[in-house]
Amino acid sequence: MKIAVLGTGIVGQSVAARLYQLGHQVTVGTRDVEATTAHTEPDRYGNPPFPVWARAHPQVRLATFADAAAEAELVVNATAGDASLAVLQAAGRENLAGKVLLDIANPLDNSQGFPPTLFVKDTDSLGEQIQAAFPDAKVVKALNTMNSALMVEPGLLAGGDHSVFVAGNDAGAKKTVTDLLESFGHRDVIDLGDISTARGAEMLLPIWIRLFGALGTPMFQFKIVR
Amino acid sequence: MKIAVLGTGIVGQSVAARLYQLGHQVTVGTRDVEATTAHTEPDRYGNPPFPVWARAHPQVRLATFADAAAEAELVVNATAGDASLAVLQAAGRENLAGKVLLDIANPLDNSQGFPPTLFVKDTDSLGEQIQAAFPDAKVVKALNTMNSALMVEPGLLAGGDHSVFVAGNDAGAKKTVTDLLESFGHRDVIDLGDISTARGAEMLLPIWIRLFGALGTPMFQFKIVR
Repeated sequence: MKIAVLGTGIVGQSVAARLYQLGHQVTVGTRDVEATTAHTEPDRYGNPPFPVWARAHPQVRLATFADAAAEAELVVNATAGDASLAVLQAAGRENLAGKVLLDIANPLDNSQGFPPTLFVKDTDSLGEQIQAAFPDAKVVKALNTMNSALMVEPGLLAGGDHSVFVAGNDAGAKKTVTDLLESFGHRDVIDLGDISTARGAEMLLPIWIRLFGALGTPMFQFKIVR
Repeated sequence: MKIAVLGTGIVGQSVAARLYQLGHQVTVGTRDVEATTAHTEPDRYGNPPFPVWARAHPQVRLATFADAAAEAELVVNATAGDASLAVLQAAGRENLAGKVLLDIANPLDNSQGFPPTLFVKDTDSLGEQIQAAFPDAKVVKALNTMNSALMVEPGLLAGGDHSVFVAGNDAGAKKTVTDLLESFGHRDVIDLGDISTARGAEMLLPIWIRLFGALGTPMFQFKIVR
């Protein structure tokens, strides 16, 4: 499948690399190709700058948000939550229309320091805001409830014996995303319901952050035992 | 241990019955003993009225919130979240001082129909509000993330192979609650941190509610795989 991954951070890199490895034709989208190509500093978590990753993945093309989305059949939003709506506007409404839009972003507000809060929650969600802003896209919220390494290689932990959620209005789009997640190695994909159920998935972040602190590692996962 | 369980609903009944079964001296607290004893109608979930339960548990005394709390060494808040602060005021600050206060309540706002939202979240929590209102009590948030049957008999599901969280400022109080939870059969008690981490535990409710809808049963549990 032709897939655009919007976002050059660790989530975008992880998802793009895994999709390429699985045989997809992947383009990473960024605001300014030249600026992204010129990055030389690690990000604030110490991850190497994008060009280091890009040299290791020469078959993954880098393009503007719009160019990446235009040619894609499926678009992944792997940007920071507070940038997502602007990035998707830059990608272009017409370039998202009719396509599956896998939304991984979390509505984290880091402005007041640690721990972050959520800038939308409970009565609305980032997933719903994206669906409302791009009514012709088929938004599916997924993967936002775990570390990027586990998003794409769930088998790294307990052989993949844990859960991932999908939320969205379009059953076909959820099927497409579910197939993709299963190709990553996810074994328990739970369909929460329509896109409003993204509220539940996004509100997992506050306990995820506390568990990260309590356990001292991001390599943990929610499993829904039933 | 002498334990007061504040609240006569299904959570209070389940916890009181289990504590009595485990050998504790249990008093259930209510606003108006006479009115509670006179109930003849099932609750809105179809559970039998309190007197039916009380006849089956004759060794569990019913008393006012204040009388129940006064004689207890440990107090359980098993009331509805929007009633909790008033109930604890009725129980009396002096009757809670120096005691472990196990807070199971969730800050559910049912005023706008289903699904409920949370009336406090993200930048504060009900657990913190209770701790702030009763600074001499040792508040421990726990058990609010699961169905009442699983709270007290976790082994009913997957042999108890799932997780429960504790949050609170007092290490000794968390130890007391952890021991109590383990006596119920909980095998994985995770200490999230101080009482502010109750925000994370309370914000699990929105996905709990969606999972209840998606799975069609309340007999499921969060397990933190690591």
